[in-house]
Amino acid sequence: MAKQEQKGITIKKGDNMSEWYEQVCLKSELVEFSTVKGCMVIRPRGYSIWEKIKEHFEETINKPLKVKNAYFPLFIPESFFHKEAKHAQGFSPEVAWIDKKLTGEGERLAIRPTSETIMYDSYSRWIRSYRDLPLKINQWCNVVRWETKATRLFLRSREFLWQEGHNVYETNEECEKETIEIIKRYANLCENLLAIPVLIGKKSEKEKFAGAIHTYTIEAFMPDGKALQCGTSHNLGNGFGKAFGISYLGKDGKKHTPFQNSWGLSTRLIGGLVMTHSDDKGLVLPPKVAENKVVIIPLLFKGKENPVLEKAKEIQKQLKSFNPILDDSEEYSPGYKYSEHELKGTPIRIEIGPRDLENNSVIIKTRIGKEKQIIKISNLKKEIPKILETMQKEMLKKAKEKMDEETVEVNSKEEFDEAIKNKKLIKINWCGETSCEENIKDKTGASTRCVLLKEKKAQGNCIYCDKKAKEKMYFSKSY
Amino acid sequence: MAKQEQKGITIKKGDNMSEWYEQVCLKSELVEFSTVKGCMVIRPRGYSIWEKIKEHFEETINKPLKVKNAYFPLFIPESFFHKEAKHAQGFSPEVAWIDKKLTGEGERLAIRPTSETIMYDSYSRWIRSYRDLPLKINQWCNVVRWETKATRLFLRSREFLWQEGHNVYETNEECEKETIEIIKRYANLCENLLAIPVLIGKKSEKEKFAGAIHTYTIEAFMPDGKALQCGTSHNLGNGFGKAFGISYLGKDGKKHTPFQNSWGLSTRLIGGLVMTHSDDKGLVLPPKVAENKVVIIPLLFKGKENPVLEKAKEIQKQLKSFNPILDDSEEYSPGYKYSEHELKGTPIRIEIGPRDLENNSVIIKTRIGKEKQIIKISNLKKEIPKILETMQKEMLKKAKEKMDEETVEVNSKEEFDEAIKNKKLIKINWCGETSCEENIKDKTGASTRCVLLKEKKAQGNCIYCDKKAKEKMYFSKSY
Repeated sequence: MAKQEQKGITIKKGDNMSEWYEQVCLKSELVEFSTVKGCMVIRPRGYSIWEKIKEHFEETINKPLKVKNAYFPLFIPESFFHKEAKHAQGFSPEVAWIDKKLTGEGERLAIRPTSETIMYDSYSRWIRSYRDLPLKINQWCNVVRWETKATRLFLRSREFLWQEGHNVYETNEECEKETIEIIKRYANLCENLLAIPVLIGKKSEKEKFAGAIHTYTIEAFMPDGKALQCGTSHNLGNGFGKAFGISYLGKDGKKHTPFQNSWGLSTRLIGGLVMTHSDDKGLVLPPKVAENKVVIIPLLFKGKENPVLEKAKEIQKQLKSFNPILDDSEEYSPGYKYSEHELKGTPIRIEIGPRDLENNSVIIKTRIGKEKQIIKISNLKKEIPKILETMQKEMLKKAKEKMDEETVEVNSKEEFDEAIKNKKLIKINWCGETSCEENIKDKTGASTRCVLLKEKKAQGNCIYCDKKAKEKMYFSKSY
Repeated sequence: MAKQEQKGITIKKGDNMSEWYEQVCLKSELVEFSTVKGCMVIRPRGYSIWEKIKEHFEETINKPLKVKNAYFPLFIPESFFHKEAKHAQGFSPEVAWIDKKLTGEGERLAIRPTSETIMYDSYSRWIRSYRDLPLKINQWCNVVRWETKATRLFLRSREFLWQEGHNVYETNEECEKETIEIIKRYANLCENLLAIPVLIGKKSEKEKFAGAIHTYTIEAFMPDGKALQCGTSHNLGNGFGKAFGISYLGKDGKKHTPFQNSWGLSTRLIGGLVMTHSDDKGLVLPPKVAENKVVIIPLLFKGKENPVLEKAKEIQKQLKSFNPILDDSEEYSPGYKYSEHELKGTPIRIEIGPRDLENNSVIIKTRIGKEKQIIKISNLKKEIPKILETMQKEMLKKAKEKMDEETVEVNSKEEFDEAIKNKKLIKINWCGETSCEENIKDKTGASTRCVLLKEKKAQGNCIYCDKKAKEKMYFSKSY
């Protein structure tokens, strides 16, 4: 038993979420700290979640919106960064450069922190006429941001994986419409695949992307009272187009600068997934992202192993489409195995022993349920998908309820300060001014999240600075 | 017509293959030179071929061999390289380092040229017992090799995409068996997906991977008389295991060092694909890797456009599973469109005009066929897959015949020198010595390719140096 206790999670989620989080990530074998400071190794269990995200993305974004994948160089010439002044300013503190000896007299090369500049250099050659538009290109790649703050598994690391989409349109209307369409599809991915509820809204002027007109965001709220930005979609207007000399000959026979957006989500989502659903026993995965949806654990009593094992194998075959694990090792007790698969987040556990065999049934327990249920073996194939579906829905529902519980609308500075102390997600009537935003950040540590896409008008004055309120803004601490 | 000529390929494959190759790659929009010297932009048409390779790989390698995907850091600490002496020696000339300012007092960081070292550092923590073996992990990623030779699109660039598999086994026998199994599956991918015939064999001592016991390779032969190494599978023995302190507790209760292999193929394959099949009109794609397998070109005569267009749309719907393009733009002539799709390598062209409509038929032309054929519209859905299959087979057959034609077995130094002048792939009775290999390279420019997996024994003496022959080795110039 000593071994088992050591393997399991030794810190409660409610006591120290940060350490609990690290233990769950490491002990469920999603990820490992790299010997390279600030970088992570995404292990097969973690990477398979990223692959599920990719698949869902392909079906719900690439195909319906006719976005094509491509690949642009890892290296970006220094001069490219400086073509769009605000973009350069936003990214320069965290850019990693390669050794000057490699480029000699040539200009410095950065390792991409994001690819607007290198992509739009190509776009300036590819786009000639309105017939070339819209142009919609996405790439799945690694990016590097040389963080000086403490790094955290999945949430902040010097290298991470992401997708970045970069579209070009004839008109600002088309561009704006699809910038919003994409953030909605990101929200769909979070809610329907990862069971993470999100706010969909617009970032403040201060928090928008460096070089964007405005930025749409999806924001999840973690159980420790911090928001996690899960994806962004930026309307870039035609600023980059002008900076990179992108133009097209319109139907009117005249030259125009097109309008652009860029949009991305990253492996950070896996961190959000862990924090939202997991518990003191370990990882909890929404069934849709679990590689193995079922584990079958035979209860082996001396002299009766064979028929139980045979039936267990038969069930494994029958449930093939759920990629079941048959944990038939004889070295470990069933109890040890239960803990092991709770730690690793397998959604459904099937127990089968000699008595179950006599009744032609098995015992089923889901990773989130408290009760066990008895199910006839002949009904398994029909019942498993229903159980998985219910589990997926319940996880989203529970997370939504939690988020709603933690959300408050307050009407005074005092209430605001109190709510932040209580780790709430706060909505207020707000002036919209950067000076007020900075003041709130200084005083309380809270920053702006977003103004919901569909939000009522603000009324009266800003509850923090008393100037006229412009919008209803969410505030909270954040990752 | 001026525009059309400018767009098409202006150099014949037989006249200057190098320039022809570059034109085909660029004008069919597979790839673009990057502003960053030695790097390339893989455009959507090129990237979709890479995705087809990935899909095939997933089905024929990952799934059946139970290999899991993961992701390891881009950066590798300098000390890791030096743990395996030969590996360090092999890679150090082309390693790109990041700016020292970033790491300060810490050790230098390289951008991965290959990931043995960073992965095996993790493996040393993950592997404890025989129960953890075999461990089979693959990653799809970018790698950087700071080439000082002239770079070429797809074939040699400072950054490229690849997969690298890294497996660990209890015994050398298992390891060797799967090292060979993988090179055979690579050959299958080349022949059955890309229609590129290859030799499967073992590399010479001189040409094996830095740090390997031996290297298996697949070698294709390009129409300009140069071989292209298309994939390699290295038996690493237990040298890396010892260097990185990887060990496992065996069933015998004792500690052992496990055996490892590594294996990779890259975007270079796309270059091989272009050179093997394409012609003076442009790109030729084996149907299996073509994103759009069919283009429908309606012949629009004034007053009769509508019924023709309607039928063309109906056909497009009917053939949906072949992802057909309907090229119905009115600005360009059918002839212009034919050339355009020949340039871009669409496998099947369907022409439909008012007369075809009357006969309920269409005219079909494949990208490689000389004849047009008339097919009833009602038979299209049944006939298209047959035509594609035949085309796929014919492309492989033609490439195989060409390779056989260019292969000669010679029995004297004089014949060898003559055959190299004639750009042949040459098989000889060879001594197997590095000094002889270097001498041949100096005198003729030819290097060793491989000794076939299933090869007869060598007889008599080495035809070049007259020492006793050890094996039958292929030689040729190479990329």
